[in-house]
Amino acid sequence: MATLQAIKYNDGHLEILDQLLLPESCIYIPINNVQDAWGAIREMKVRGAPAIAIVGSLSLAVELRKLAAPETKKDLHSLVKEKLDYLVTSRPTAVNMQLAAEACIKLSNNLVDKDSVDAAEAKDVVVKQLEATLANDIADNLAIGEHGATDITKKCGNKDKLRIMTHCNTGSLATAGYGTALGVIRSLHKANLLDQVYCTETRPYNQGSRLTAFELVYEKIPATLICDNMAAAAMKQFKIDAVIVGADRVAANGDTANKIGTYQLAVLAKSHNILFYVAAPFSSIDFQIPTGLSIPIEERPHSEMTHTGNIRTAAAGIHCWNPGFDVTPAELITGGIVTEKGVFKPDQLVA
Amino acid sequence: MATLQAIKYNDGHLEILDQLLLPESCIYIPINNVQDAWGAIREMKVRGAPAIAIVGSLSLAVELRKLAAPETKKDLHSLVKEKLDYLVTSRPTAVNMQLAAEACIKLSNNLVDKDSVDAAEAKDVVVKQLEATLANDIADNLAIGEHGATDITKKCGNKDKLRIMTHCNTGSLATAGYGTALGVIRSLHKANLLDQVYCTETRPYNQGSRLTAFELVYEKIPATLICDNMAAAAMKQFKIDAVIVGADRVAANGDTANKIGTYQLAVLAKSHNILFYVAAPFSSIDFQIPTGLSIPIEERPHSEMTHTGNIRTAAAGIHCWNPGFDVTPAELITGGIVTEKGVFKPDQLVA
Repeated sequence: MATLQAIKYNDGHLEILDQLLLPESCIYIPINNVQDAWGAIREMKVRGAPAIAIVGSLSLAVELRKLAAPETKKDLHSLVKEKLDYLVTSRPTAVNMQLAAEACIKLSNNLVDKDSVDAAEAKDVVVKQLEATLANDIADNLAIGEHGATDITKKCGNKDKLRIMTHCNTGSLATAGYGTALGVIRSLHKANLLDQVYCTETRPYNQGSRLTAFELVYEKIPATLICDNMAAAAMKQFKIDAVIVGADRVAANGDTANKIGTYQLAVLAKSHNILFYVAAPFSSIDFQIPTGLSIPIEERPHSEMTHTGNIRTAAAGIHCWNPGFDVTPAELITGGIVTEKGVFKPDQLVA
Repeated sequence: MATLQAIKYNDGHLEILDQLLLPESCIYIPINNVQDAWGAIREMKVRGAPAIAIVGSLSLAVELRKLAAPETKKDLHSLVKEKLDYLVTSRPTAVNMQLAAEACIKLSNNLVDKDSVDAAEAKDVVVKQLEATLANDIADNLAIGEHGATDITKKCGNKDKLRIMTHCNTGSLATAGYGTALGVIRSLHKANLLDQVYCTETRPYNQGSRLTAFELVYEKIPATLICDNMAAAAMKQFKIDAVIVGADRVAANGDTANKIGTYQLAVLAKSHNILFYVAAPFSSIDFQIPTGLSIPIEERPHSEMTHTGNIRTAAAGIHCWNPGFDVTPAELITGGIVTEKGVFKPDQLVA
């Protein structure tokens, strides 16, 4: 069965699956420019650190392709920088969009001084780099899946079938396709090594129950949905072998910012002697940030907690705390950090 | 400000606040007989172990008061036993209804052999015992509140103001009034010792966000709502002093069955060096059950997890695990078990 495709790009035309409408409806919306992408990211029609960077990058490719070639390479550079700086402001916690922006800004800046390239050619080079994010991400995810599946299997003593817990959505709906943590689970399933995956609901936005569950049902992967407060009970009752989650940003020391609730799962995994893995493209590692203490944590609107659609689920007037992410200290990542370059212990990360 | 009243009983007339409609609407429904009570308990219009026992008991009082005196005391006993055995089947995990039923069945049985009492008088005696559950529970809760507040304050080194985390609803909406764990929080607040209470949403039924938050706003107790997966992050960030929860059933060794998610909070409290308390009437301790392994855990319908009202929040076709409760091992109850008779270490419980 084909993997679910959440980002469709073809020759300057970009469409994304509106994840706010899942699981009720499966509707694609056009992204015609950077402004559209900024809004879609902010409203979480697309989410997941890699997917945000890809949609942001592709939206600029869409704009540049439609544009007549700029007069000068300096004009091109100013435009590229302005658009990308703006895209980075859409959501603050994930590093991928920022890294993609920095790489592209550096490229367009370098092109300014390269006499052999004119403005039109420079535009094409930038567009190609932006467009390459999609295929590169899928290739990286497949590598993450293979590395992760091999490592977990080995560390679990080559058990016949594994029980894996995961959090939030890190699959086709968070990446260009396949996924990071969910990519590892896909690889285990393909290799006939998966007994069952337990996915958490992931309140308040229900990325687990809406998105991960949607992918798992779509691809007939054996799965059980649990509420976030059932994690410890499930670890104990079902003898979970490993927990594997994604990352929005990994600090140089291995501290990992990921969806709120990740830290808690890592503490619970440790106390139940269960391996805890983070799976992310190497680009999620931010070597500029020494430890998790420096990672900015986005606070999300309280309405996410007080309402489901138009239904009020919390008493009127109650004060809420709604951090989008938390930081898992490196020492709790007992399995390792799975990247396309291999699996690393947190203290083995080198730029 | 008056405490919220969820059970109204007056001279054979019983009304309960329909908790399924909270926090949108505050509507009382009549309970005219045992059948009504069974349905209201099963559908969770009333929930919380003490409240279930009180509504069950009062519903039989309502029926008996309307009834002409039975021909014989044996007839009375058969009737009482049949009705109470039926009520106990409404929900299996909490022990309070079962204990209340056993006590009343024993009373009516003893009356059969008591020659000085005729059938009409025996009916009155039974009705009085059933009706006494309401006032007794409020008195017990006030005592629980005082004992708990004193003990927490002492064990926290007489800190000026305390930050307390709680789970599910254990307040006026779970008891006859005041509450168990939430009663302790009320007592701390009354004594001006409470900085802030952090209440968990308590998925999938949202007893925390719908009910506890409603009570806290109603009585202007300083409170913050968190999702269940934010507990560890909140413990760390806000330096929580103690976690206090209720109990559906405590085994003889102190193992405690309570709302799903309690076990997880206890593990997290331990790893953050935070005191963990259980607050419950002494009648919640089931000395017939040696350890938590023997406590039956109710599984609830999957629709609780997949839908909020008519809104689907989980992908169609996903398998769910929805245990209503979990068991917290005695060794994690580091603060103690707070009852109307005082605060006990789990290994100090004596029938």
